[in-house]
Amino acid sequence: MLRHRCNVKKRGNMQGAVLRRGEMRVEEVPDPVPSEGQVLVRIRACGICGSDLHFADHGADVVAGHRLMEGLPPTETSRVDLNVGVFMGHEFCGEVVDKGPDTKAPPVGTLVTSVPILKATNGYVPIGYSNTVNGGYGEFLVLTSRFVLPVSNGLPASHAAFTEPLAVGLHAVNRAGIAPGTGALVMGAGPIGQAVLAVLAARHIEPIVAVDLSPARRDLALRMGAHGAIDPTCEPSFEAWRRIGGGGPVVAFEAVGRPGVLNEIMRTAPIRTTIIVVGVCSGPDSFVPRFGISKELDIRFAYTYDRSEFAESLGLIVDGKVDVAHLITGESSLEAIGQSFADLKNPEQHCKIMVVP
Amino acid sequence: MLRHRCNVKKRGNMQGAVLRRGEMRVEEVPDPVPSEGQVLVRIRACGICGSDLHFADHGADVVAGHRLMEGLPPTETSRVDLNVGVFMGHEFCGEVVDKGPDTKAPPVGTLVTSVPILKATNGYVPIGYSNTVNGGYGEFLVLTSRFVLPVSNGLPASHAAFTEPLAVGLHAVNRAGIAPGTGALVMGAGPIGQAVLAVLAARHIEPIVAVDLSPARRDLALRMGAHGAIDPTCEPSFEAWRRIGGGGPVVAFEAVGRPGVLNEIMRTAPIRTTIIVVGVCSGPDSFVPRFGISKELDIRFAYTYDRSEFAESLGLIVDGKVDVAHLITGESSLEAIGQSFADLKNPEQHCKIMVVP
Repeated sequence: MLRHRCNVKKRGNMQGAVLRRGEMRVEEVPDPVPSEGQVLVRIRACGICGSDLHFADHGADVVAGHRLMEGLPPTETSRVDLNVGVFMGHEFCGEVVDKGPDTKAPPVGTLVTSVPILKATNGYVPIGYSNTVNGGYGEFLVLTSRFVLPVSNGLPASHAAFTEPLAVGLHAVNRAGIAPGTGALVMGAGPIGQAVLAVLAARHIEPIVAVDLSPARRDLALRMGAHGAIDPTCEPSFEAWRRIGGGGPVVAFEAVGRPGVLNEIMRTAPIRTTIIVVGVCSGPDSFVPRFGISKELDIRFAYTYDRSEFAESLGLIVDGKVDVAHLITGESSLEAIGQSFADLKNPEQHCKIMVVP
Repeated sequence: MLRHRCNVKKRGNMQGAVLRRGEMRVEEVPDPVPSEGQVLVRIRACGICGSDLHFADHGADVVAGHRLMEGLPPTETSRVDLNVGVFMGHEFCGEVVDKGPDTKAPPVGTLVTSVPILKATNGYVPIGYSNTVNGGYGEFLVLTSRFVLPVSNGLPASHAAFTEPLAVGLHAVNRAGIAPGTGALVMGAGPIGQAVLAVLAARHIEPIVAVDLSPARRDLALRMGAHGAIDPTCEPSFEAWRRIGGGGPVVAFEAVGRPGVLNEIMRTAPIRTTIIVVGVCSGPDSFVPRFGISKELDIRFAYTYDRSEFAESLGLIVDGKVDVAHLITGESSLEAIGQSFADLKNPEQHCKIMVVP
């Protein structure tokens, strides 16, 4: 399918993956059509995020959690109806094929990525976890023209699609305010843990010690710049950090997102440690406040990034300061997305799978 | 009893309160004798801290919690043997009566207070929660001479004894890094919550909204400088904060120390709120990490103060910037200390009782 740059186009159908009753199904879905201020891209790669796996399995809990929360404007996630198909996919890279009326956009054929936020008629809405707004698991996607970033340097689309998870890691590192002289302990070496330690390495933090139960993920951590990678069942994490050269202050990153991990960090961390929670533990968790109080710990939750962090993340990949090639362990057709969701549950086998429609 | 300034003195006995099997008992205990670098004071007032009430009821849990914790040097608390008498009392003011050999000290008769840390032959040890080091619930106490601060301006001893809890509040406020332009919500208007809001008021923070179930404590909060004091069963706390004038950023202080309070703050706080946990919740607590993540909350635990904060706290009282008179709701003889521990459990009746031997 080759599209012309025209502002009025006939609406057709495309192939897109939709979450229905916990299963990813590929269906005919209406072609997204760019409005004013939007560009249409043909998806070249879209990474499968752990949050998508979690949403597929526990969507009802996620939606209920968002509905329970106050202090935020109602989010798209809190409005999701799980009885209707849900679009996901927020780590994408695509090629410009069209644009809306009166819209400035990069030339057709330009490879671009973008923060997953769409300027729609009803305001800004997230791309991903929506009944109405398309995500990256499809042939085409509309993006906000002023958010798109051209991908330079001949970078492969699958590498550019890693901009989003790397930005999550970069933001977590920024939340820590960490600088050389302070070491880091990264609990969990999944895609987000790897993103965190890659950014730490790019910023010359040392030592960086990764902690993961999986030998494959520990190997990957060493390739991404960790100075040590340990199995927490064999050696207490902070002891390993000291053995590997840590002596001064340390920032601990919780990138596991499972109950009990934060409390174990709190129990064993040195006095006045900063803990950055970037792993999304969806259910309730428990902890012993006295650990936090007696040691005056700081717990900072990290979630989103801003547009400048997203652009910096793309720059790290384009400039070769972070090599994401090691982290991309598989490629999947759109048709095989369900199997890829299943495959990603084995950390020995995979870290990040890119869906290439 | 009048003591002479002499460096060698005969050892006798004094009246002191000792915790035995959860009960405060007044016994004959050996007179403390000042070594080099120490001064002996006659206690004029010692405040009963909520932590002492908690330790009397749940000492075994507190000690077990300290023993479980890594990352701190072994604390006196982790070494306490509950089968032996325990000395408590760390909010004291006394009159200098003697000093150790080759020791610089204020003249006999000077009213002083001090951080509750004793320089002993085996290093620095806390005053309070010890089988061996005396606390403030007795006739006499040895202090570290270079830590003692003279109480000026004719301040009553009971007011000077409030220096310690006020320093806890001051440190919590310092941990928040709060400045005018940011408002505060203080959950819990016990002695520590009152100390927090008194310091906030002295620093011209507004609005300050206190939250407590007790009408008496809400009245007290208004007297100490809160712009509003609300019953959380009648109005959601952050809504009240907005109604009372809050609009911009807010720091929430958790000064209740009961399970569930932190999670409710996390659930209802606006995005990017800083939460200072200064209430000591001793048992395990539970929370929903997603609340913290989605809103990128900062949770900072506050516990100790440093010597300059302690001195600043005394200065706030001496200079009349914080009037602690409202907070001192009772005075107790040493003999009646057990009854005072019981009386303090009723927030309608009491906020702070000073033991005056």
